[in-house]
Amino acid sequence: MNWMQIDRIVKQALIEDLGHRDITTDNLIPPDHQSQGVFYVKQEGVVAGIHVAERVFWLLDPDIVFTVLKDDGELVLEGEQIARVSGKTRTLLTGERVALNFLQHMSGIATKTHDLVDRVRHFPVKVVDTRKTTPGLRILEKYAVRVGGGHNHRFGLFDGVLIKDNHIRAAGGITEAIETIKRNTHHLSRIEVEVEDLGQLREALAAGADVILLDNMDPEMMKEAVRITGGRAILEASGGITLENLVEVAKTGVDLISMGSLTHSAAALDISFDIISLR
Amino acid sequence: MNWMQIDRIVKQALIEDLGHRDITTDNLIPPDHQSQGVFYVKQEGVVAGIHVAERVFWLLDPDIVFTVLKDDGELVLEGEQIARVSGKTRTLLTGERVALNFLQHMSGIATKTHDLVDRVRHFPVKVVDTRKTTPGLRILEKYAVRVGGGHNHRFGLFDGVLIKDNHIRAAGGITEAIETIKRNTHHLSRIEVEVEDLGQLREALAAGADVILLDNMDPEMMKEAVRITGGRAILEASGGITLENLVEVAKTGVDLISMGSLTHSAAALDISFDIISLR
Amino acid sequence: MNWMQIDRIVKQALIEDLGHRDITTDNLIPPDHQSQGVFYVKQEGVVAGIHVAERVFWLLDPDIVFTVLKDDGELVLEGEQIARVSGKTRTLLTGERVALNFLQHMSGIATKTHDLVDRVRHFPVKVVDTRKTTPGLRILEKYAVRVGGGHNHRFGLFDGVLIKDNHIRAAGGITEAIETIKRNTHHLSRIEVEVEDLGQLREALAAGADVILLDNMDPEMMKEAVRITGGRAILEASGGITLENLVEVAKTGVDLISMGSLTHSAAALDISFDIISLR
Amino acid sequence: MNWMQIDRIVKQALIEDLGHRDITTDNLIPPDHQSQGVFYVKQEGVVAGIHVAERVFWLLDPDIVFTVLKDDGELVLEGEQIARVSGKTRTLLTGERVALNFLQHMSGIATKTHDLVDRVRHFPVKVVDTRKTTPGLRILEKYAVRVGGGHNHRFGLFDGVLIKDNHIRAAGGITEAIETIKRNTHHLSRIEVEVEDLGQLREALAAGADVILLDNMDPEMMKEAVRITGGRAILEASGGITLENLVEVAKTGVDLISMGSLTHSAAALDISFDIISLR
Amino acid sequence: MNWMQIDRIVKQALIEDLGHRDITTDNLIPPDHQSQGVFYVKQEGVVAGIHVAERVFWLLDPDIVFTVLKDDGELVLEGEQIARVSGKTRTLLTGERVALNFLQHMSGIATKTHDLVDRVRHFPVKVVDTRKTTPGLRILEKYAVRVGGGHNHRFGLFDGVLIKDNHIRAAGGITEAIETIKRNTHHLSRIEVEVEDLGQLREALAAGADVILLDNMDPEMMKEAVRITGGRAILEASGGITLENLVEVAKTGVDLISMGSLTHSAAALDISFDIISLR
Amino acid sequence: MNWMQIDRIVKQALIEDLGHRDITTDNLIPPDHQSQGVFYVKQEGVVAGIHVAERVFWLLDPDIVFTVLKDDGELVLEGEQIARVSGKTRTLLTGERVALNFLQHMSGIATKTHDLVDRVRHFPVKVVDTRKTTPGLRILEKYAVRVGGGHNHRFGLFDGVLIKDNHIRAAGGITEAIETIKRNTHHLSRIEVEVEDLGQLREALAAGADVILLDNMDPEMMKEAVRITGGRAILEASGGITLENLVEVAKTGVDLISMGSLTHSAAALDISFDIISLR
Repeated sequence: MNWMQIDRIVKQALIEDLGHRDITTDNLIPPDHQSQGVFYVKQEGVVAGIHVAERVFWLLDPDIVFTVLKDDGELVLEGEQIARVSGKTRTLLTGERVALNFLQHMSGIATKTHDLVDRVRHFPVKVVDTRKTTPGLRILEKYAVRVGGGHNHRFGLFDGVLIKDNHIRAAGGITEAIETIKRNTHHLSRIEVEVEDLGQLREALAAGADVILLDNMDPEMMKEAVRITGGRAILEASGGITLENLVEVAKTGVDLISMGSLTHSAAALDISFDIISLR
Repeated sequence: MNWMQIDRIVKQALIEDLGHRDITTDNLIPPDHQSQGVFYVKQEGVVAGIHVAERVFWLLDPDIVFTVLKDDGELVLEGEQIARVSGKTRTLLTGERVALNFLQHMSGIATKTHDLVDRVRHFPVKVVDTRKTTPGLRILEKYAVRVGGGHNHRFGLFDGVLIKDNHIRAAGGITEAIETIKRNTHHLSRIEVEVEDLGQLREALAAGADVILLDNMDPEMMKEAVRITGGRAILEASGGITLENLVEVAKTGVDLISMGSLTHSAAALDISFDIISLR
Repeated sequence: MNWMQIDRIVKQALIEDLGHRDITTDNLIPPDHQSQGVFYVKQEGVVAGIHVAERVFWLLDPDIVFTVLKDDGELVLEGEQIARVSGKTRTLLTGERVALNFLQHMSGIATKTHDLVDRVRHFPVKVVDTRKTTPGLRILEKYAVRVGGGHNHRFGLFDGVLIKDNHIRAAGGITEAIETIKRNTHHLSRIEVEVEDLGQLREALAAGADVILLDNMDPEMMKEAVRITGGRAILEASGGITLENLVEVAKTGVDLISMGSLTHSAAALDISFDIISLR
Repeated sequence: MNWMQIDRIVKQALIEDLGHRDITTDNLIPPDHQSQGVFYVKQEGVVAGIHVAERVFWLLDPDIVFTVLKDDGELVLEGEQIARVSGKTRTLLTGERVALNFLQHMSGIATKTHDLVDRVRHFPVKVVDTRKTTPGLRILEKYAVRVGGGHNHRFGLFDGVLIKDNHIRAAGGITEAIETIKRNTHHLSRIEVEVEDLGQLREALAAGADVILLDNMDPEMMKEAVRITGGRAILEASGGITLENLVEVAKTGVDLISMGSLTHSAAALDISFDIISLR
Repeated sequence: MNWMQIDRIVKQALIEDLGHRDITTDNLIPPDHQSQGVFYVKQEGVVAGIHVAERVFWLLDPDIVFTVLKDDGELVLEGEQIARVSGKTRTLLTGERVALNFLQHMSGIATKTHDLVDRVRHFPVKVVDTRKTTPGLRILEKYAVRVGGGHNHRFGLFDGVLIKDNHIRAAGGITEAIETIKRNTHHLSRIEVEVEDLGQLREALAAGADVILLDNMDPEMMKEAVRITGGRAILEASGGITLENLVEVAKTGVDLISMGSLTHSAAALDISFDIISLR
Repeated sequence: MNWMQIDRIVKQALIEDLGHRDITTDNLIPPDHQSQGVFYVKQEGVVAGIHVAERVFWLLDPDIVFTVLKDDGELVLEGEQIARVSGKTRTLLTGERVALNFLQHMSGIATKTHDLVDRVRHFPVKVVDTRKTTPGLRILEKYAVRVGGGHNHRFGLFDGVLIKDNHIRAAGGITEAIETIKRNTHHLSRIEVEVEDLGQLREALAAGADVILLDNMDPEMMKEAVRITGGRAILEASGGITLENLVEVAKTGVDLISMGSLTHSAAALDISFDIISLR
């Protein structure tokens, strides 16, 4: 990851929460008071963002000592400690909430992803994310998906071609769209096209699509799509996929299953921070 | 709200998604191609963020015409249109996902808040948010809570005093903490203290706390806390409150119920955008 | 204080003064030339901003050694040294003016505040600042007021409710204004209202104002206001208060005296920097 | 002036004061409520910064109508109106203090400058500013000096060579310093040197200094310096110049009189803003 | 292109050149003086950046009228006018150099690219750029390459996989590198590998590389590489390609020819700006 | 130089190239893999920017060890190593291109400047740059000119007065322009005027210009200009000066020769980076 970008995000979050100063802590705790604190999970899950939490404290005070006990990707049980922090009490109290907000959000995504990936681990299918991410946090959310065992789709509009229904309508058809794009896009980009039925699938295959997104198809139609395609393109199932029908979709033989809910609707993992004053 | 801050957030989200350019749209759609598009909800809920979505398009191209059909706070049913947008097709295609990401996230929070507030509408209690927000989006999330009928707690560490368990441990006790804070804080700030049992509650009342946060108490203990307090302080119930026990908590007579899940674990509201090419 | 914000301010000041480079120093002094310099006051006063001055040099060159001789809040006499700096001569010469500009401005405010606070030290009254600060420097100026023994009013429009004459006129009256605000503001905010005569004072008290600002009243009227209020609200005297009438105002029994001149019209404290070349 | 820089300064000031939102105004005044307001001076002086005040409102809401009644540089008497503003009441209430803070600060500097310039108007001498400005506001303060009839010295370390005592000590003498600088500096820069006595003055003249700063000399010595120089260099009097001895200094025949107090210790001009609600 | 990014670049360039103000123009030309100016080329070439030049003036003053006479991509002859600008003389004089710097740089790249593309127009080969661009200007330089008829390679490290010699050495071989990458990269990315001889080429083909960069091969070896590959991968010739050997390389049958000199060593196109004062 | 500005430029270049992450390196090289790399030139030239290259790696990872072998200003032969870098392989691979882009660009300018300066080393003339620089990189390009033995003209519009033909036309004549500027500009600024023939030269001399730019004159006319001026002003030759006529221009006796091509059309110096994996 690009840590210059992440530092910018963390700084923004600290300024958002801290403003000009922490009026509780600054008025209560002497500047030199030292403490130790511990992060622990209150719920089983997968840790993600532990180095982002570390960065929160580092940006407030480079002298804070942050010890990672469970690294990103580790499965943890209720009650387990995941990091220990020591240094000025003021810094610990001022930074804890922002650190927790990153940790809980990212671990929530990693945990949800891990759960889904685990259900289809016996199938040759990848679970991938989408661009349905929280504004400003995409770099962290896509990382959390990888930590949870998922894979990333394109990062944004700039690093992958995906011709969607709205594009097709504006461009005048699938074939036209694929041909135009092929003339213009750089040679390292594969072309993905969204199709809604088997007719469109055949048109996309004929026009030379590299990847085809099967939009909101039921498993029966997906199975047929896999048969028709016969390996000539990568197939991505998307739309309406839930915990309940995930395995059924995996069974159809598609290569990728993408789910926006990985990032836009994952519940936070419950994590707490306790301080033990040292003097 | 401070729209200078919101523009900064929206710009950041656009740069995150768009990078140097939209390689699908720019290579496919002629620069002057015009279209109209429509946002519609695929799920019942409360709209929030419609003017943020408007701002997404405005920042990409001031000539886009954005028509609000359902304003923030309105209840909408599955299938209802909430806004119409017209202008350059390129701008519509490039902006739609970022606009949706804001709209879905904010409407998700407003919808969840509205649902909870509605359940306790017959009690003299306010549902309030916390600082457990998504990093970088607090201004929008706290706004969405208000749109859903909830109330805001303090915005950050700078605009309200809340002495939590970690502070008390570091400061050497509730009475000491309250006294120190009272000497130092500005005269427009009330003092809130977190207590875990009735002994601490009595100590906080004796020391002159203005607001008392009842942390993770069961409804029985809360009821007793309300009795002991007898109106001498505002009481906030916090910790472990769910859809299931919300009404029971409201019945205890506390003044405020705060829930982190309003902001950190609300699922996105399902909203779509369809484009109709004009020429 | 939030040092991330202060670093931003200091960096901006350095860029403002330094531009692309210091054409005198860079063309005159060899890059490795070492020196020592000393800051000393040429006028009695209270030191404020010594760590901001330290930060100026640190941002230019982390290898500079800055030794604080008199910390913020210390009273110093004409001629006393307050800090010693050693390292590259170029850095000392390039940074001295910006460091002095912060030090002189902040120490000027602390000195003026200290002088005023000292005059009313036998009265149970606090001297507080206002929002009449120099644009961009509020965090430093409010800190300097505290260093000088004064207290802070709200920091900005976001962390305290103050209903002023212009608000009252627009809202349709004091009672209406207080009632509206009480419904909407978060529970940690007290409500302050500005009144111009005793009729308005009575209305504000009846409506439940927590704090009342007595705007431009003469001491006689203030005394009467204190009597009428009888402890039901905090009273702040504001407007037209000078060195000359300060004690008279303190005698009226008001709780707070606010003065914009603390920050908008304090003269700089005279401080100099002398360099002793080392080789 | 570079308005891109000024907009950055104004935005920063607005964010500083406004934070996430104006909790008094937003909770009190309906969004569409319209008003008119007027800025008027409560003290005789010279207006400066009226277009900066205009920019404050413009950045908050481009629909505000701001009418300049007295432009920068105009002399105004107590009670005179200098600008009228109309538009949304919320914007007027939210922006007034920041607008006033700029106006009062800049007008204070222009007024002080005007007063000093006026005292020496019959002498062929220019009153100039220094780099002793408020961090972050130099562009505005140097403009206010010009508005008041004064002249600017160099803007910063990058646009003028001034060899000061600390430089001379580090460089090993006046002659060495001037010679080194002449080899290195670009051909549009004149060379100024600070001298403390007449011996140094002679050395500086011999070495070919273009401008000589007479540091803390008494008027007698200055007169002698003027005689010795005989027009071979521009002479700047600096240090210890006050309202009291200004005319005496002007009489010595120096070309420039520089005063740090123009910018670092000017008292704010007293200006107010009154709103008249329209509906 | 993303105009938010371009505006940031243009603003930075304006601040770099303008600083606090244009001391020649501001001291010479009355604020309301109006003029018209014209951009014309002094050398045959291809125009690129005309809308960036427009943006320079727009950011200084939205009231400037900028009329494009020759749009990006048009071939122009010595002496031809390419744009006309009218408005405040001050703005024209202050903005002309920055506008010219963008125009000359971008047109220089477009002209060079056009010249090279033209020489190989009868071959089925694309001329592409590299990441050897001027720091900070890649978005504009890659656009200028497209304007000149060239094609873009990947934009940066984030939107295309290119395994270079340094990667291969660190990864332990071509086959290992390709296999590892295939497991990890997102499905829209093709894999490109750099090879130095025909042995490496065969290894890359066997491992399934999509694109192969032939590094510094002579035309004979390239021809053999084309024969061996037989259409199984896209071939990119790179390294040591000049105006002189370009056609010879094109004849070998490679698909792409990449040249760093398109962006890092194109001479500026000679363009001037003349102002005709209007009053 | 102001390293705060340079760090900003370097960061921007890294973000431009790196985006969210280096998908080749991150997916290929284990995080702890260590390597050493070496920068070497493939062409004779003058090194410039070696500390900027150092900064590229430092900003990515402060633990990288960067050893300068040839410092800025040193002449190097084909094949010579100029710096060695060791640390994490990922950082070396991610940073090399950006480091090279700065090094090649700056060394190209220093080499071209050195070549030109060398040709006129026996004449008492300075080779100077112009404002025709690459947008955003002026601070680095003007530094590279100095490294190559050239001199800088003014940095921008803010630190030197240069009245050009367009100014003269708008101001109504040379004499008027010089007189107006003299009244307004600060005393450390010399006045430069552009003239096109000997009549204008005489007018400029009579009006007291300090520096005169001889625009596009042929060597004969320049010689005459030198004779007429007789040392009363500094003379700068500008326009149409090439490698071919440079010595002839130097022979005319002008003081300065300015060339835009130093910065806007210097070819990059060919430099490479090779990595040797350590484990």
